[in-house]
Amino acid sequence: MEYRKLKHQEEDEEAAVGGDAIESLRGKAHSLNTVATLGGGTAVDPSKWKRKSIVTLALTVLTSSQAILIVWSKRAGKYEYSVTTANFMVETLKCALSVAALSRIWRNEGVTEDNRLSTTVDEVIVYPIPAALYLVKNLLQYYIFAYVDAPGYQILKNLNIISTGVLYRIILKKKLSEIQWAAFILLCVGCTTAQLNSNSDHVLQTPFQGWVMAIVMALLSGFAGVYTEAIIKKRPSRNINVQNFWLYVFGMVFNAIAILVQDFDAVMNKGFFHGYSIITVLMILNHALSGIAVSMVMKYADNIVKVYSTSVAMLLTAVVSVFLFGFNLSLAFFLGSVVVSVAVYLHSAGKLR
Amino acid sequence: MEYRKLKHQEEDEEAAVGGDAIESLRGKAHSLNTVATLGGGTAVDPSKWKRKSIVTLALTVLTSSQAILIVWSKRAGKYEYSVTTANFMVETLKCALSVAALSRIWRNEGVTEDNRLSTTVDEVIVYPIPAALYLVKNLLQYYIFAYVDAPGYQILKNLNIISTGVLYRIILKKKLSEIQWAAFILLCVGCTTAQLNSNSDHVLQTPFQGWVMAIVMALLSGFAGVYTEAIIKKRPSRNINVQNFWLYVFGMVFNAIAILVQDFDAVMNKGFFHGYSIITVLMILNHALSGIAVSMVMKYADNIVKVYSTSVAMLLTAVVSVFLFGFNLSLAFFLGSVVVSVAVYLHSAGKLR
Repeated sequence: MEYRKLKHQEEDEEAAVGGDAIESLRGKAHSLNTVATLGGGTAVDPSKWKRKSIVTLALTVLTSSQAILIVWSKRAGKYEYSVTTANFMVETLKCALSVAALSRIWRNEGVTEDNRLSTTVDEVIVYPIPAALYLVKNLLQYYIFAYVDAPGYQILKNLNIISTGVLYRIILKKKLSEIQWAAFILLCVGCTTAQLNSNSDHVLQTPFQGWVMAIVMALLSGFAGVYTEAIIKKRPSRNINVQNFWLYVFGMVFNAIAILVQDFDAVMNKGFFHGYSIITVLMILNHALSGIAVSMVMKYADNIVKVYSTSVAMLLTAVVSVFLFGFNLSLAFFLGSVVVSVAVYLHSAGKLR
Repeated sequence: MEYRKLKHQEEDEEAAVGGDAIESLRGKAHSLNTVATLGGGTAVDPSKWKRKSIVTLALTVLTSSQAILIVWSKRAGKYEYSVTTANFMVETLKCALSVAALSRIWRNEGVTEDNRLSTTVDEVIVYPIPAALYLVKNLLQYYIFAYVDAPGYQILKNLNIISTGVLYRIILKKKLSEIQWAAFILLCVGCTTAQLNSNSDHVLQTPFQGWVMAIVMALLSGFAGVYTEAIIKKRPSRNINVQNFWLYVFGMVFNAIAILVQDFDAVMNKGFFHGYSIITVLMILNHALSGIAVSMVMKYADNIVKVYSTSVAMLLTAVVSVFLFGFNLSLAFFLGSVVVSVAVYLHSAGKLR
C-alpha cells in the first residue's frame, strides 16, 4: 500500500513537470495499423530521414500530451482506477495493434521469414531482459523514497540522460562527437534547471545511499533502453511488429504480476475496470501509441533521439500546462528551456563529419 | 544620498555573488611596471598565445579576489570610507603605474613616436567617449532601481554578455562561429542560473520601463567595452601605457566629479582618507591591477575573452566565498557553473576553421 502511494506520488510529480511517464513502457515495444507499412520492408535511404522525423515528432507530441492526460485522469487529486490495470490494458491494446498490423501485412505480402510470428528460443530469450531490468529498478524506487522526496527524485532522474549516453557509447559502440557530448551534458543540466524550485537544494542533502541508488537506477534504466535498441536493431530485417509482439508479451506478464501484488483486492472487490472514465481510456490509448512511437524511434533512430524527444516533450508539457492548469513558468524554467534548446541545436551542429 | 545608498547596495550584491565589480573600471585602462615590457613592441606570434593566456589568467584571478576584498573592506555591513575617493585613488595609482612603466621604457628604449606621452587632439578625442557612456549608464542605474530590486538588477546585468557579443560583431566586424554564438547564449544563461535564488522570479515581473532601461544599460556597457577595445587596437604599435594614461586621465576627471557630487561634505569634514583600512588599501591595489589586466586583455585579446574571464571569476569568487564567508552553494549555482564551463569549452571548440 505504501509502495502504491509512493508510485502514485511519483506519477503525480511526473505529470506535474511533464516528466517521461513513457518510461514505464520503454522496455516493451509494439505496433499499429496506420504505421504498419513503416515496419514492412528494409529501410530505403531517401525515406529514412522522413521516417525518422515522423516517429520522433510523434513521440514528442504523444509524450507531451501523456502527462497532461495523467493529470486529467485523476479526480480530487487521486486515481479512482487501479493504475496497474490501466498499464495492463495499455499492453493489451498494443498487443492487439501489433497483431492487427501483422495480419494486414500477411494479407498484403504473405507470411515470410521476416514477418512470421513464430520464433526461436534463441531470438526470444533476450526479450524478458529489459522487463527484468525495469522490475529491479521499480523495486529500488520503493527504497529510494526513504532517502529522497518525490521532487528530489524527479531531479535525480535526469541522471538517466547521462547514463543513456554513456551506455549507448559503451554497449552500442556508437560515437558521439565532443560537441555532442557537451550537448548531452547540457541536456541533463537544462532539464534539471527547468525543474528547479525553492526546495531543490534538498537534493544536495541526499545521503550517500540515496545517491548510490539513484545512480544504480539511472544505469538500470539507461541499460534497459539501450538493450531494447540493441534487441530491435540486431535483426534489422525482422518486422518491427513481431519484435514488438514479443516484447509486449513479457510486458504483459510483468504487469499481471504487478496487479496480483498491488491491486488484487481492489480488482476482486470492485472489478477490473472500476473507476475508469473517458479520460482514462484516452490516456490508455495515448500510452499505447507512445509505446509504439518509442519502439519505432528505437528501430529507426536511437536512444539519443529518444532522450532528446522526451526532454523537449517535458518542456512542451509545462508550457501547455500553463494554459490548461494555470501553472506559473519560473525564470529557472525559462533558463532550462534555453539550455535544452541550445543542446538540441548543438547535437545536430556537432555531427561527426 | 539615496543614489549613494543604492550604489552601495548594488556593490554589496556584486560582491555577494562575485559579480564584475571590475566593470566600473572597464572604460579606463592603464599600465604597470612589471608587465610594461608586454606593451613595448609589436606582437610576435609565438609569444602571442602566452601573453594572451597570462593577461587572461591575471584578469580572472584579480577579478575573483576583487569582490572578496570589497566584502572585507566593509565594517558592520557598511563602508566607512567614501567609495568615490577609493575609485579616485584607483585611477591615481594606475596613472602612477603607467608613468612608472613609461619612464622605464624611455630609459631602456629612448622616447619614440610610439611611446611618447604627448599626443594629437585627433588621437585623444575618442578617449572620453567610454567614460561618457559609463556616466550615462550610471545615471540610468539610479533610475532603474525604481523598477527592479538589487538581486534582480544583478540578473538583468547578464544581458551585458549578449550585448557585448552583438556589438563586438557589429562594430569590430569580427565573426563568431555558430557554435560560439551558442556558447555565448549559454554563458549568459549559465551566469543567470548560478545567480538564481528563491526571489529570482521577481525579475519576470519587471515592468516594461525596467526592461527597456536594463537593455539600454546593457547596450551602453557593451558599447563602452567594445569601443575601448577599438580605441586601443586602432593604433596597434602605440604603447599601451600611453593609451592607458590618456584613458586614465578622463577616468580621473569623471571620478573627481563623482566626489564633488556625492561625497563633498564627507571629504571636507572627515578628510579624504577617512575610514581607510589596510583592506581598503589592498582593495585599491587590486582594483588598479584588475584595471590594467582589463586593458591588456583589450589590447592582446578581446572583449569576448574578457566576458568569459569575468564570468569564470564570478564562479570562482562564489566558491572561494564558501570557505571565507560560509556561503552555501545552491544546486542552481552548480548547474549554472556546469553551463558556463561547457560554454567556455564550446567557445574554443567552435573556433572558425
